[in-house]
Amino acid sequence: MKNSFNNRLKELCEFKNNRLCIGLDIDPVKSNIKITNSMSNLIDYTKDIIDVTIDLCPIYKMNLAFYECYGSKGYLWLEKVIDHIGNRALTIADGKRGDIGNTAKKYAESLFNYFGFDCVTLSPYMGVDSLEPFISDPSKGAFILCLTSNKSALDIQMKVYDGEPLYLSVAKLCKKINIKNNIGIVVGATKYKKMRQIEKNSLGLSWLIPGIGAQGGDIKSSIEIGNKSGVGIINVSRGILYYGNEMKDVLKATEMYTENIRRYL
Amino acid sequence: MKNSFNNRLKELCEFKNNRLCIGLDIDPVKSNIKITNSMSNLIDYTKDIIDVTIDLCPIYKMNLAFYECYGSKGYLWLEKVIDHIGNRALTIADGKRGDIGNTAKKYAESLFNYFGFDCVTLSPYMGVDSLEPFISDPSKGAFILCLTSNKSALDIQMKVYDGEPLYLSVAKLCKKINIKNNIGIVVGATKYKKMRQIEKNSLGLSWLIPGIGAQGGDIKSSIEIGNKSGVGIINVSRGILYYGNEMKDVLKATEMYTENIRRYL
Repeated sequence: MKNSFNNRLKELCEFKNNRLCIGLDIDPVKSNIKITNSMSNLIDYTKDIIDVTIDLCPIYKMNLAFYECYGSKGYLWLEKVIDHIGNRALTIADGKRGDIGNTAKKYAESLFNYFGFDCVTLSPYMGVDSLEPFISDPSKGAFILCLTSNKSALDIQMKVYDGEPLYLSVAKLCKKINIKNNIGIVVGATKYKKMRQIEKNSLGLSWLIPGIGAQGGDIKSSIEIGNKSGVGIINVSRGILYYGNEMKDVLKATEMYTENIRRYL
Repeated sequence: MKNSFNNRLKELCEFKNNRLCIGLDIDPVKSNIKITNSMSNLIDYTKDIIDVTIDLCPIYKMNLAFYECYGSKGYLWLEKVIDHIGNRALTIADGKRGDIGNTAKKYAESLFNYFGFDCVTLSPYMGVDSLEPFISDPSKGAFILCLTSNKSALDIQMKVYDGEPLYLSVAKLCKKINIKNNIGIVVGATKYKKMRQIEKNSLGLSWLIPGIGAQGGDIKSSIEIGNKSGVGIINVSRGILYYGNEMKDVLKATEMYTENIRRYL
């Protein structure tokens, strides 16, 4: 039987003794390291970031928007980045997809089989049948949006019905469909009380935790809460990519985050 | 001042005397018209479909999954399809995106500026700030998922709080943020009572109505309800693309749907 995604994630996190997920959201305009918009430059720069961090980093997250904004060339770049990572780390396609069966199947085919990602992020708004095509292969995983760290999370996710906020129903739903041990949830790092409430209802689910650094969440609580019911990985993008103006600063920031994470493991 | 998206849609729908949106979800495996997986063949085939239907069709919807599954080559195909349509019809990027501000901005930049789409579909799960970057330019539009026609719509969308189902809150939220007259909602064609309830709360919003044909919704109710508060467009993909085994059958199916739609306008 294939090893489940959640087990693969756990094993690799333990092997590298880390819970850091580096978000490869490359933006030449924001980078202090000199890069241009030329594709060969962007590809080399991304490969360098991977090479200096991969001994410490068990999983990379590619926010598809940052590649898509270069059109077909951006997707070619993405293909090269995934190839470069190979089996050395896991990869998340952060596209927050979610569509009816027919289409979801195409997306799953695309992200898992064509591009070779190990897991995806999904929006739960269309319900379980929109998630199913992504979770049929136990070795491939899905992180489903539960509670996000943006201000407008209260518009929909925090609506309460029958005494229960929507994000909690989503956590319970995810736990229910985690038959093959390949499901996780996205939980923003800024709301500790709510994180604790989710933790009690998400036994066995992996957590993907954005919101550290630029968005204000703290590592201690995120590691302690997010690693109780399953493996909780901490995503950092800007805090590592834009830390300094040389490639060695990328390594330095990665080491700092790693040290910080290990302190609470 | 730029013409608003909802006005542009209305004008083009009136000019072509139609409310048909053709979904260009090209799948060589399902097509009865002989096509291969070769890119040049796929591009020619899609251009032919556009050329035989564009006199009748005011707006085309590209489901991004069907292009993405070919990787970077698929996005090159998409670029060529949009170029081919040019100013002859409007285009919807059906990607059901939705992400935090930083990322949403990148997606908007990508879909509107790089690819040149006229509007997008979005998921509301992350709230208003995840939608804002898509609606700042009045001439570009966004159709936000409200009530979909899949079975699992009941998992999240139909949750009731304070006596109000989530899909209705979403409709009201969309109405509230429709300051620039460029917002629409996605309402599946299979639930008439709920469609009527949404209609009463969506004055001024355009509707994108999938679920006709293969999914069982009927045109009469969809046109009558969907065109009360704004312009309601009926999406048909499989019912046109796979109607017959020659290109003239694509035209025939388009004419049949058009005739049917005009009957109830």
